[in-house]
Amino acid sequence: VIGYGVDHDGHVLLAQGDQTIDLARVPAVGVDPQVWASGSLNAFFALGPQTWSAVYERLQDLDPPPEAIRTRPQNLRLPFAVADYVDFYASEEHATNMGHILRPGSEPLPKAWKHLPIGYHGRSGTVIVSGDPVPRPHGLRGPGDFGPTARLDLEVELGFVVGQGSPRGRPVTVDAAPDHIFGVVLLNDWSARDIQSFEYVPLGPFLGKSFATQISPWVVPLAALEPFRTPGPRQYPEPAGYLRQSQPGNYDIRLELALNGTTLSCAFARGLYWSAAQQIAHLTVNGASLRPGDLVATGTISGPGVGSLIELTNNGESPITLDDGTSRIWLEDGDEVVIRGWCGDGALDIGEVRGRIVP
Amino acid sequence: VIGYGVDHDGHVLLAQGDQTIDLARVPAVGVDPQVWASGSLNAFFALGPQTWSAVYERLQDLDPPPEAIRTRPQNLRLPFAVADYVDFYASEEHATNMGHILRPGSEPLPKAWKHLPIGYHGRSGTVIVSGDPVPRPHGLRGPGDFGPTARLDLEVELGFVVGQGSPRGRPVTVDAAPDHIFGVVLLNDWSARDIQSFEYVPLGPFLGKSFATQISPWVVPLAALEPFRTPGPRQYPEPAGYLRQSQPGNYDIRLELALNGTTLSCAFARGLYWSAAQQIAHLTVNGASLRPGDLVATGTISGPGVGSLIELTNNGESPITLDDGTSRIWLEDGDEVVIRGWCGDGALDIGEVRGRIVP
Repeated sequence: VIGYGVDHDGHVLLAQGDQTIDLARVPAVGVDPQVWASGSLNAFFALGPQTWSAVYERLQDLDPPPEAIRTRPQNLRLPFAVADYVDFYASEEHATNMGHILRPGSEPLPKAWKHLPIGYHGRSGTVIVSGDPVPRPHGLRGPGDFGPTARLDLEVELGFVVGQGSPRGRPVTVDAAPDHIFGVVLLNDWSARDIQSFEYVPLGPFLGKSFATQISPWVVPLAALEPFRTPGPRQYPEPAGYLRQSQPGNYDIRLELALNGTTLSCAFARGLYWSAAQQIAHLTVNGASLRPGDLVATGTISGPGVGSLIELTNNGESPITLDDGTSRIWLEDGDEVVIRGWCGDGALDIGEVRGRIVP
Repeated sequence: VIGYGVDHDGHVLLAQGDQTIDLARVPAVGVDPQVWASGSLNAFFALGPQTWSAVYERLQDLDPPPEAIRTRPQNLRLPFAVADYVDFYASEEHATNMGHILRPGSEPLPKAWKHLPIGYHGRSGTVIVSGDPVPRPHGLRGPGDFGPTARLDLEVELGFVVGQGSPRGRPVTVDAAPDHIFGVVLLNDWSARDIQSFEYVPLGPFLGKSFATQISPWVVPLAALEPFRTPGPRQYPEPAGYLRQSQPGNYDIRLELALNGTTLSCAFARGLYWSAAQQIAHLTVNGASLRPGDLVATGTISGPGVGSLIELTNNGESPITLDDGTSRIWLEDGDEVVIRGWCGDGALDIGEVRGRIVP
């Protein structure tokens, strides 16, 4: 894996292949040591894209001093303080699957879907890191029907981490958006389908999602992903001017989903209809500001594999069988979900997000 | 007005009647001066409800030293860093009006409306303070139809400010919720109705709201509102156990809406169907944590007056006439909106939120 992370003592680390470096102990990197002592990546984010590039390049060339080499920790802290968390709905395969499942016989895509990246704000205070337990949420599943969710699901996503903010009233263009993105994490958008389906009209998902959103601990810098940048699918109808991009906006990332050690599916982010740059241009076009630590997620990534149990089981109608011989429709207590990511044909490991359901 | 605020130099102030006190200059208040030097109220929030009460009581009795008396500033800073911002939909009159306007002929209330407080997460990074300008947002109003919103609206609301957080996995009960609420602000949830109506299916409001949410600068402590606590309307069907409250949960607050000096309406928070305590119990029942600085808004307050132009003009069909002889359907550039609030029969002034539309 390659990426920046923060250990439980608050040290900022760089993982690079098998090596783990304590950045506070590499003076040659040329950044105020206070930045590495702050216990989160936000202070590094605030230095801006030129500094991120300069640091990243220097670290590629550098032979780190022996006192900077660390054993890679098993568990890491949430690597940055999340400012606002926005979740999009950018996979056409996923949105189409959900339309067929939830509104059979109707047009599967919402009417605005091909005109703008549909998204909503989630709860930033419940973004957790890989390894944190996920308690099964309680809630209302219908009138008077309160209890633990019986339809606990996962969603395979990528999260783009905003490094550089932007002022209110100044939209970020599609072409400038990559300068605002520090890097990428894997993201599991845990979902309670019964709570969600009772509550979501007309204001969208709320408690069905807000109990936990889990991310991988190493933020992979965009610079490392640059060789894997690739065009997304052709967009028709042609999007509005502020959404037109002149450069390839997708990344060739493969996401593998495993439940209790059984691989359930494999999906590809290169097929996402809306790119992260388009999502950022969209979310700021009304004048909304960005802040370092904003987290912008893709929504469930499906295609060709699917990134949620609701799709895998056709809304609970077709159980799946695990390697241990048990079957599942929804998640059970004790189940462990792991999402792993790689770029290209496995050339670059981008880590994993791992979570276990507890009662 | 009574309340805690922060001036542009970062001094924490208490407004109390005509007096304004610089709290860092009142040693007798018994709080570490660092708390008042932090430039926001979040450090004070973190001290917890017993300290808030003790400080508030001491300040009632105290004759502040002359060096602590300040001229009340015309403009103040955003008084606290907003953690998560949640907006509810708690007024039955408003939800009913919106149902009639948007879905004529159908049941006006969404099916879950009387079973749980419907809400969604908004953008905390664009919460601004009274006096800040509000640029007219641009966005897509239909396929290919990009431009400045032609249907700019306001929403009259109250915002409850969380002072004391709660850990993930530990729901806050209705009866414990007031211990987590530091105080109240007036809130204008600026809305672009054309952008909102194109984007909001199925994930809820996004860019139609996220350009600006404006609050009053003085956070009125809950202790000051205690004499005005009052029962809300009877709830039928009886809500689920976690939403049943044993104490009166509403506040007798009158909200007056003025546009360019013309009073448009007057609404009463005492009639809200769902109380702030119920909203907090609901938003944590799935295990979501609270943080100091979470902002929990009521949604538009209507009854008997209405708290938005979409209601006042019946979705643009009936223009309103201002005292200067001009008429309005939606807001025009240069328009100034002021929401003022009082408790009881004017006994306690809780301030104002003021914003002007700029192109």
